[in-house]
Amino acid sequence: MPSSIKQFIHDYIDNGIDINDDLPFPTSLKSIAKHTILTDYGHVEQNAYFLLSGIVKISMQRDGEERILEFFFPNSFFSSYTSFLSRLPSDVEIEALTDCEVEIIHYNDMQQAYKTSLLANRLGRMVTEQYYIRKTNREKDFLMKTATERYQELLDIRPELVQQIPVHMIAKYLGIKPESLSRIRKEIS
Amino acid sequence: MPSSIKQFIHDYIDNGIDINDDLPFPTSLKSIAKHTILTDYGHVEQNAYFLLSGIVKISMQRDGEERILEFFFPNSFFSSYTSFLSRLPSDVEIEALTDCEVEIIHYNDMQQAYKTSLLANRLGRMVTEQYYIRKTNREKDFLMKTATERYQELLDIRPELVQQIPVHMIAKYLGIKPESLSRIRKEIS
Repeated sequence: MPSSIKQFIHDYIDNGIDINDDLPFPTSLKSIAKHTILTDYGHVEQNAYFLLSGIVKISMQRDGEERILEFFFPNSFFSSYTSFLSRLPSDVEIEALTDCEVEIIHYNDMQQAYKTSLLANRLGRMVTEQYYIRKTNREKDFLMKTATERYQELLDIRPELVQQIPVHMIAKYLGIKPESLSRIRKEIS
Repeated sequence: MPSSIKQFIHDYIDNGIDINDDLPFPTSLKSIAKHTILTDYGHVEQNAYFLLSGIVKISMQRDGEERILEFFFPNSFFSSYTSFLSRLPSDVEIEALTDCEVEIIHYNDMQQAYKTSLLANRLGRMVTEQYYIRKTNREKDFLMKTATERYQELLDIRPELVQQIPVHMIAKYLGIKPESLSRIRKEIS
């Protein structure tokens, strides 16, 4: 399992990279305490994060009600990515659900690397491709599937999420009421 | 307005590219008759298309009922992109809603270019970033907005879509019944 951005690049982007090679951008390490807000509503996202340990949640508010867009587990990149790309204020909030360790790439350093580095562009392209696929699958689910089918699929495809995330948050991720999820869980078991 | 992939790259990716420069991959031109299926269910997507003229629709079926994921207008790339990236059979269908002119990049040529070309990776990254943003906005809409709000947003942000696409297809794109959309349109006007 990758334990740093460099290891991630070696495993998934370019296995020619060596542990002694420089990355095309600087990174920094940071420890984040549980319940810290990494990116707040209305702020322009300055960072792309790589999660070394812990769990992170991305959510929105509507009329005081929370909707969860995504959970992130170790060895993956996360960011308020629409804000990172568009330089518009974030309409989502990123919160550490547990104590976390992260490796950080600053927006300016990433843009600088994108100008000249094949590797940086490959990394950005391939990570974005994976998130595009995930978002498209979620779009298809909302268009095509019942809440029961969407929960069943979560059990099949992302069991670590169902095991590690509290039920009330899973309901917010599926876009349904906690009572509905309770009923679905009884039906299935 | 861009009228070819080269012009698109000049306008949005790298304005250093000259009309006499070679692209990092070969492309071919094709005329497509109205109602042609460009990519069928169950086939692995072999092409990335750039739409020169016409309108294209991407859709899925569920229990014989159609759901529309996206419409494409000239000067944009389209593909059964999840299948193109994953090499899994397409779960969507691409249909020409009108006669179309397209410029085509073959999967193998794109992958070859990705190995060595900074420009190809920049293009792939930046186009995928834009589609990621679009998919994420759609996800937020499904989680947060009523059908009326989603139709209103379509009027505000993509008026060309509302003007050029028949009402029954817009309903399928919003994931609602045509009767519901009729009611919404009466409420708004």
